[in-house]
Amino acid sequence: MMNRVIITAAITGSIHTPSMSAYLPITPDEIAEEAIRSHGAGAAIVHIHVRDPEDGRPSSDQSLYREVLTKIKAETDLVVCITTGGGLGQTTDERVVGVKTFRPELASLNAGSINFALFHALDNLKSFKYEWERGYLSMTEDFIFPNTFKTLREFNSIFNELGTKPEFEIYDIGMINNLAFLIQKGLIKKPVYLQFVMGILGGIPATIENLVFLKKTATDLIGDFEWSVCAAGKNQFRLCTAAMLMGGHSRVGLEDNLYLEKGVMAKSNAEQVEKIVRISKEFGLETATPDEARQILHLRGLNRVDF
Amino acid sequence: MMNRVIITAAITGSIHTPSMSAYLPITPDEIAEEAIRSHGAGAAIVHIHVRDPEDGRPSSDQSLYREVLTKIKAETDLVVCITTGGGLGQTTDERVVGVKTFRPELASLNAGSINFALFHALDNLKSFKYEWERGYLSMTEDFIFPNTFKTLREFNSIFNELGTKPEFEIYDIGMINNLAFLIQKGLIKKPVYLQFVMGILGGIPATIENLVFLKKTATDLIGDFEWSVCAAGKNQFRLCTAAMLMGGHSRVGLEDNLYLEKGVMAKSNAEQVEKIVRISKEFGLETATPDEARQILHLRGLNRVDF
Amino acid sequence: MMNRVIITAAITGSIHTPSMSAYLPITPDEIAEEAIRSHGAGAAIVHIHVRDPEDGRPSSDQSLYREVLTKIKAETDLVVCITTGGGLGQTTDERVVGVKTFRPELASLNAGSINFALFHALDNLKSFKYEWERGYLSMTEDFIFPNTFKTLREFNSIFNELGTKPEFEIYDIGMINNLAFLIQKGLIKKPVYLQFVMGILGGIPATIENLVFLKKTATDLIGDFEWSVCAAGKNQFRLCTAAMLMGGHSRVGLEDNLYLEKGVMAKSNAEQVEKIVRISKEFGLETATPDEARQILHLRGLNRVDF
Amino acid sequence: MMNRVIITAAITGSIHTPSMSAYLPITPDEIAEEAIRSHGAGAAIVHIHVRDPEDGRPSSDQSLYREVLTKIKAETDLVVCITTGGGLGQTTDERVVGVKTFRPELASLNAGSINFALFHALDNLKSFKYEWERGYLSMTEDFIFPNTFKTLREFNSIFNELGTKPEFEIYDIGMINNLAFLIQKGLIKKPVYLQFVMGILGGIPATIENLVFLKKTATDLIGDFEWSVCAAGKNQFRLCTAAMLMGGHSRVGLEDNLYLEKGVMAKSNAEQVEKIVRISKEFGLETATPDEARQILHLRGLNRVDF
Repeated sequence: MMNRVIITAAITGSIHTPSMSAYLPITPDEIAEEAIRSHGAGAAIVHIHVRDPEDGRPSSDQSLYREVLTKIKAETDLVVCITTGGGLGQTTDERVVGVKTFRPELASLNAGSINFALFHALDNLKSFKYEWERGYLSMTEDFIFPNTFKTLREFNSIFNELGTKPEFEIYDIGMINNLAFLIQKGLIKKPVYLQFVMGILGGIPATIENLVFLKKTATDLIGDFEWSVCAAGKNQFRLCTAAMLMGGHSRVGLEDNLYLEKGVMAKSNAEQVEKIVRISKEFGLETATPDEARQILHLRGLNRVDF
Repeated sequence: MMNRVIITAAITGSIHTPSMSAYLPITPDEIAEEAIRSHGAGAAIVHIHVRDPEDGRPSSDQSLYREVLTKIKAETDLVVCITTGGGLGQTTDERVVGVKTFRPELASLNAGSINFALFHALDNLKSFKYEWERGYLSMTEDFIFPNTFKTLREFNSIFNELGTKPEFEIYDIGMINNLAFLIQKGLIKKPVYLQFVMGILGGIPATIENLVFLKKTATDLIGDFEWSVCAAGKNQFRLCTAAMLMGGHSRVGLEDNLYLEKGVMAKSNAEQVEKIVRISKEFGLETATPDEARQILHLRGLNRVDF
Repeated sequence: MMNRVIITAAITGSIHTPSMSAYLPITPDEIAEEAIRSHGAGAAIVHIHVRDPEDGRPSSDQSLYREVLTKIKAETDLVVCITTGGGLGQTTDERVVGVKTFRPELASLNAGSINFALFHALDNLKSFKYEWERGYLSMTEDFIFPNTFKTLREFNSIFNELGTKPEFEIYDIGMINNLAFLIQKGLIKKPVYLQFVMGILGGIPATIENLVFLKKTATDLIGDFEWSVCAAGKNQFRLCTAAMLMGGHSRVGLEDNLYLEKGVMAKSNAEQVEKIVRISKEFGLETATPDEARQILHLRGLNRVDF
Repeated sequence: MMNRVIITAAITGSIHTPSMSAYLPITPDEIAEEAIRSHGAGAAIVHIHVRDPEDGRPSSDQSLYREVLTKIKAETDLVVCITTGGGLGQTTDERVVGVKTFRPELASLNAGSINFALFHALDNLKSFKYEWERGYLSMTEDFIFPNTFKTLREFNSIFNELGTKPEFEIYDIGMINNLAFLIQKGLIKKPVYLQFVMGILGGIPATIENLVFLKKTATDLIGDFEWSVCAAGKNQFRLCTAAMLMGGHSRVGLEDNLYLEKGVMAKSNAEQVEKIVRISKEFGLETATPDEARQILHLRGLNRVDF
């Protein structure tokens, strides 16, 4: 069982904007549909953000989440991992409300603060579908993704109470130590599940050298743990493959990268899932079903979520 | 010349509070006096913060800075490196005003944002000399040290205009990439001078493994550069020594560590300088004079500062 | 041009014995045929050992080499890389004679000495096709692959004289330093081409962590260089893929691994070449033609070899 | 107890020759005297080779060993670690006879084969005290230090039988894997004691980066272990200090380095011991007594040796 690779599809996120790709899912229907197709392609987990159906702006509207989650659950047994990173600029209360409302089996929990910069994406964008996009990207020159120790403590306590497993998002070396500190204080319980998020400007760059060091550091500070990698943009498949070769899991999806290969946009999340599954097979790796992912990550079960 | 080790003394900082050590310099006189004695012991650079003489609270009062700087200049040819990190909670404008007022040869420029946590220090403090101390420390559970890309760009532009060399403070791997990004954009000019700040809770831990990786990453992303290390608390001498053994410079001082050895408080910054100089001599290293430090770091000269 | 990945097929080697796989090419015809098919599958270089056609024992018989080389050249424009590692136990004179006789464009040159142990393979072998096999494997418990500094110097001097480019075989970290020493002495000329040989018992194990360290060490000690990876046994595709993801070239072939995937023997070298080419395409990498490999490695040209 | 640093003094070795330093101990008296003085300076272990009293040539004469060992035991409670590396060119039987004869508590056991090159030392030697020296050094261009798996197995079995603890000498990454292989086969028993021997031409260079990687690799492959570092020539104190800063033990002595600092020859092993002890005290480390070293390394006790 433990040899299975868990594929996560991060369906839409809050980094890319509608002008960047015509294939970015926007409406609850599109997001749910993409999740369902990703399941068909081999994903065991879907990582869910929602967007305003009108203009694609990242949203924390719980009714949008409910629509997405209900549809996914009606059609698949996918593990749903709700974001608590949210859209840039959302309050921490807005970010965690989905966990309270839906008690998902898994949700992201960001392990520290960094400059989270997207403004350099403006260099390659000539025109915008929606008014808000330019401002959303350009404001990130002055943006910090805020996840203080207090936020970590409070989010983690909410997760624990509700039985939601945290997927700790690690953007740099110090964040592993943040977790180790909280584990030592007895606030975070082992075993933990780490997502190494590589290649965000402000965080650790997406190189294999850095992945090796992230894994080594986590081993030194935490001991045993399950881990996955996602990487921004063109490094997605390179790093996701390296993760699998090193014994980790992989997250693909349009949240992280809009392309399937150089110059070729991904027409769906499922295309990226198919590709990483195809690569995994070259190395004799089998992908986990949602239930196998539940076993590996010690999740509570789909019958106990509130959606 | 290039074989010389530059010793910096960080005289008082804004991390420690008066209750932690009776030897922490508070008044302008004490701070200047400590700087002057550090010079006598072998320091080429002093890193300067000021405190409210009444209660030791970190301050951005320019008249306090002027008093300290004038006294130091009257007695020594030290390179003065003013902080732009400031005290926790100061605005970015407050933080940079000293550079504008005094045009120092060198000033710190923090290369990104992290959780900068001191609250765990409360575990070891039983009583407080001053009212403000407890709140100052405990609020850091919810604190981010804010240095967005916009702040970096603006501070760097002010430094460039005024001829102040930035000492880039690096708290984690991603911050090296922040600099590499700004160098590539033409906003930061090489050669750069990096201070690896290790062991702050929220940033990269103070281990030799991590120092090796910081140096390797900077070499990969930036090429040639001068660098120094400071490390929080009990790891100070271990990491400062490792830095020297690896070809770097060293920063000691009561800002980073209040002890001289286990269980023995440092009665002055000069004691720590003497110790690191003594260690450096065991390896045949010679410490740089202030003028040698100016040559190594390409500083403008003491006759062109505004104090 | 420099973005191309060079695929080498190491056709038969001298590590595996006939009892281990029915598909191991033995006769000159089989070896040449396998090389030609590997070319068709995408290999730019073939690494050539020969075997006694009677019993498959590694041989240094020059007429066998001539037969193989002539056949390959008649059908393809492959770069032929002759071994000077030879079979275990051959004298250094026997090992280098092929370079003198055929003046190939490329030949292996082993960069140091290690225990080169195959005896643990006996654990999985129940019966033997040929008498010699058991002794050949078991004697390696007491075997050192001898490549002293004198051998390196002499081989390198012969290579230089004849215009054969060395492919330096690196089995551990110290061997990179051996080369750096000889480069500094002016005995080895840059640019160099390195083959990291991973996973031989006695040398560095085949892990991605170790590959990262090999590359880092070579960069520190040598500067720029072209490099490839081969890895023993089940780690072959994992490490060859990691090499490509890190900017290197890849060597596959039955010399290194007899399997195509877990439990499935490779029926030919070409099958392994096809697989690594297929993997490379997933990452948008293009494989080099033999002539592109010549450009990348600065080889002399097929019209100037003596076969 | 476990916080103590074990200082080993490698008194004379077989690398340096009499022409290199007037202070190299040659006769049994000199060697024993140097060992006794090293003990006074803080060494817990002495590593012993002997030399022909006539001309300083490395010797395997057991009566010379007996003289040295008896004298040391008469005056101190030092742990004596006999070499089984021997002088270059000695047979493996000659190398291990001392263990059989004297049943020391500790003896070196080299964990693999490398080119062990000293010939470059000739560049700095103008004249020779003794005839044999030039040949001894120059022959190393063609020398391999032979320690096959068979030798390892046999030596280890002799050590086990006699109750002598092996100090495994590690010259490169692959040797750690050699041990891991033999541990997995049940031939070597844990806990093991490793000596990382750095900076021999042919082995891994003496850098802090490499030491970090050696330690990391051993942790990955072996788990817990005690370890020490020795480093050739000018890197001795730098690497021995780094070892102590990383939690390891240190070996100094004239076997590894003839200098006390740049340009200043060490007049005795004791001077080097004094220096490393002085450095260790700067970091609050306490040096182990011989009996504390026995506890840390699980040695049998001085009352059970055969000398």
